[in-house]
Amino acid sequence: MSETAQRDPFAPRPARDVPSWDAVCDVAVVGLGVAGACAAIEAAAAGADVLALERASGGGGTSAASGGLLYLGGGTPVQRALGFEDSAEEMFKYLMAACGPDPDPALVEPYCAGSVEHFRWLAAQGVAFGERFFPGAHEPPGDDGLTYSGSEDVHPFCTIARPAPRGHCPKVVGPKGALLMRALLASVERARVRVATGARAERLVVESDGRVCGVEARVAREPLRVRARRGVVLASGGFIYDEASVARHAPWLLRCRAKTGTESDDGSGIWMGVAAGGVAIRMDAGDITLPIFPPVVLKQGLFVNAQAQRFLNEDAYFGRSGEFALLRQDGQVYLVVDEGCFERPALFPAELAGTGETIAELEGEIGLPKGALERTLEYYNLHAAQGLDPLFHKGRAHLRPLDRPPFAAFDLRPERFVYSAFTLGGLQIDADAAVLSQAGLRVPGLFAAGRTTSGLSKQGYSSGISLGDGSFFGRRAGRSAARGG
Amino acid sequence: MSETAQRDPFAPRPARDVPSWDAVCDVAVVGLGVAGACAAIEAAAAGADVLALERASGGGGTSAASGGLLYLGGGTPVQRALGFEDSAEEMFKYLMAACGPDPDPALVEPYCAGSVEHFRWLAAQGVAFGERFFPGAHEPPGDDGLTYSGSEDVHPFCTIARPAPRGHCPKVVGPKGALLMRALLASVERARVRVATGARAERLVVESDGRVCGVEARVAREPLRVRARRGVVLASGGFIYDEASVARHAPWLLRCRAKTGTESDDGSGIWMGVAAGGVAIRMDAGDITLPIFPPVVLKQGLFVNAQAQRFLNEDAYFGRSGEFALLRQDGQVYLVVDEGCFERPALFPAELAGTGETIAELEGEIGLPKGALERTLEYYNLHAAQGLDPLFHKGRAHLRPLDRPPFAAFDLRPERFVYSAFTLGGLQIDADAAVLSQAGLRVPGLFAAGRTTSGLSKQGYSSGISLGDGSFFGRRAGRSAARGG
Repeated sequence: MSETAQRDPFAPRPARDVPSWDAVCDVAVVGLGVAGACAAIEAAAAGADVLALERASGGGGTSAASGGLLYLGGGTPVQRALGFEDSAEEMFKYLMAACGPDPDPALVEPYCAGSVEHFRWLAAQGVAFGERFFPGAHEPPGDDGLTYSGSEDVHPFCTIARPAPRGHCPKVVGPKGALLMRALLASVERARVRVATGARAERLVVESDGRVCGVEARVAREPLRVRARRGVVLASGGFIYDEASVARHAPWLLRCRAKTGTESDDGSGIWMGVAAGGVAIRMDAGDITLPIFPPVVLKQGLFVNAQAQRFLNEDAYFGRSGEFALLRQDGQVYLVVDEGCFERPALFPAELAGTGETIAELEGEIGLPKGALERTLEYYNLHAAQGLDPLFHKGRAHLRPLDRPPFAAFDLRPERFVYSAFTLGGLQIDADAAVLSQAGLRVPGLFAAGRTTSGLSKQGYSSGISLGDGSFFGRRAGRSAARGG
Repeated sequence: MSETAQRDPFAPRPARDVPSWDAVCDVAVVGLGVAGACAAIEAAAAGADVLALERASGGGGTSAASGGLLYLGGGTPVQRALGFEDSAEEMFKYLMAACGPDPDPALVEPYCAGSVEHFRWLAAQGVAFGERFFPGAHEPPGDDGLTYSGSEDVHPFCTIARPAPRGHCPKVVGPKGALLMRALLASVERARVRVATGARAERLVVESDGRVCGVEARVAREPLRVRARRGVVLASGGFIYDEASVARHAPWLLRCRAKTGTESDDGSGIWMGVAAGGVAIRMDAGDITLPIFPPVVLKQGLFVNAQAQRFLNEDAYFGRSGEFALLRQDGQVYLVVDEGCFERPALFPAELAGTGETIAELEGEIGLPKGALERTLEYYNLHAAQGLDPLFHKGRAHLRPLDRPPFAAFDLRPERFVYSAFTLGGLQIDADAAVLSQAGLRVPGLFAAGRTTSGLSKQGYSSGISLGDGSFFGRRAGRSAARGG
């Protein structure tokens, strides 16, 4: 292989090597999911001539295929209409505790402070939010508008910040992400943003001083060389669909058999950004969902590990239980239930690891250490009868002694039960959505948002954070790029 | 700040912008610890004119300050002389199980296959190895030569690979790393390698086709521009001394109050390599040592978490217990002992979290959930009396019911007890120690070894792996660079 052929495909092109430009704009936006759409709208609103490159045949991306939840708070009109008190301070406390280890306050603080304004902006783009509260603690099946979409109201977070539901849903029965993106893409169109579909961005173009000044894309087999006078916004998703990169950076996510994303989530935006001088951080992080609930009645059951020990309050958000199960227990986990709460998980089929008329029999069938599950149940039941869970503080609503035979255990090992995952690592940005280098300096002319970046969540997740930070910092990326940095 | 001033300090210098060269060589080696020394020796042996840049006043680096253990096996002369059977296959099985998640077989396989030859090569450089077995499972205080330096002989690894001690020590009473580096640096000198001390490498120099062709360093305030005709080897350590980078990539390591390393471990080699097109992987990983043993008698005690549950066999390697304590239990851990095994940890002082004439009293003093520790002890004691540990399979030698009052618990929370850490993430290399890009292509002219790379250990660690893979892949880096790639 020649030296030239060996060059990294993401290596930026020096501007002087670009023979001619096929298009010129002020701001080029790579990817037209929620982050790119918001970037394009705001850049255009700031007076920039915007060209968006979308590799699919139309905008929407993973956002359009998602559940459509946006994590918003601090006292939004929907929260207030439904009687939920919230403030930017309480929201900040929750996110700093739930999005760790070590979320970046430089991102979390403005996100919380600007959340009510952001809600209004989204509404102004035509995103209608439902105005009914859904108590299910997962994505509402109907057109309800507000739900607890993380662990706000469960231990330990309910002791850290005043709980408030912050999962805001576009008002529609059925695919909510599609509705969200339909509204935003209509706004993109109204803003007279030029959109090139079927355009796969391949590398950035840089001036000799390192400033990003364009993008090279490909439409079918033809090159599309775009000069961006003020800046480029990378908003092309995460990398869950690039198995080689997942294996290299976050191999545990390969154990999750469902991917949350689309094939566009191949990390190309991240690697173009890194090749131009950006730093990718927390590439190990990923949302890991263990979708055992609904039905909610199963929260009366007990998560146990290979030692028959409990390891988490069972009413925790399913992204938290997935993280704890896979990363802390190596996925060796079961959900123990009794006749009083036996029901099949609704979202994915679960196999039974064992059944028994007694706990001893169940324990034997699963192959847990003899006597260990009996002791775990004994301690749990003793306290549950008093409405207590001294180990993990599960909410009273789900506390009941598990003492009605027969007993069963669902097999939640990732080889047996479908976990779903997407990546949370990516380019480091500052509060203006400018891409930073390892040394903490801005890469001139380069901005990013959405799962191309490491955003609010550094590992701990709550539903709605990706559409939330993608749209919020997408807007900032668009404004910053229109300003030229 | 001007655009130019904002440029990343690690951004490579285009060769055409180098006004003149201050030195020319075939192979430039950055850093003269174990990896750099071995690279320099082998490059010179292959006929290359070698220039090594060392920022300190002399070679040695973190390697010289280390315990001097090298992880070697497969039937070394010392293993055979002491009657320990081993093979490359068993060593491979152990490392693939112990160095995960997901160690790279492309590195582990040649490391194991070449280990006996590597031992002989080290011996030929003048490294004398002790020939006595040390049973202590930590670094020998005397001049013993061989020890179990990981979790080879404990559960679960003893069921995965036939146990063999593989921690090989230079034969000296006292600082063994210093002896190792003295021998290697003498060999560097014999090989007529030119060494520039006080020379801080700042950035790589690249040809317009991306090939690395030199290094820019600084000696005091003077620039030292080195042209490297065949290649550059980065061997300048990890990044544990760069707090900003640790916070960005592996923030949990900041909770460890002791750093294993020197101030040279600032990650500069990693960032120079990334800026030239290499990919940094597993930047989240770190060795986390919980040095509670010796004294060995403490292994009779029980590690418990905030729920008073055990979480690991207490005879596991101290890097494994550190990892489990900090990453899986958030550092909320204690070691419970009784009168029969009460002794102060030798390496770091430990405070008592509580004491009690009864377990219930101890539990109350620590603030553990009522009755939880009693149950943990009850189950443990019941089985320990029969020489069994059904939960974690601690070795029989350390199994004894904890039933001799008074009881006590050492406080092993990282705010109370000193954990030590170093980083394990870095540049991805192939078996020839060539630096790879995100796309899996070689960065022409660039090689790396030691903690500047992500090596054998992707998280799980055993003592001796860093000097082991640093020296082994350092040699390969030197040979590859001398060949010109």
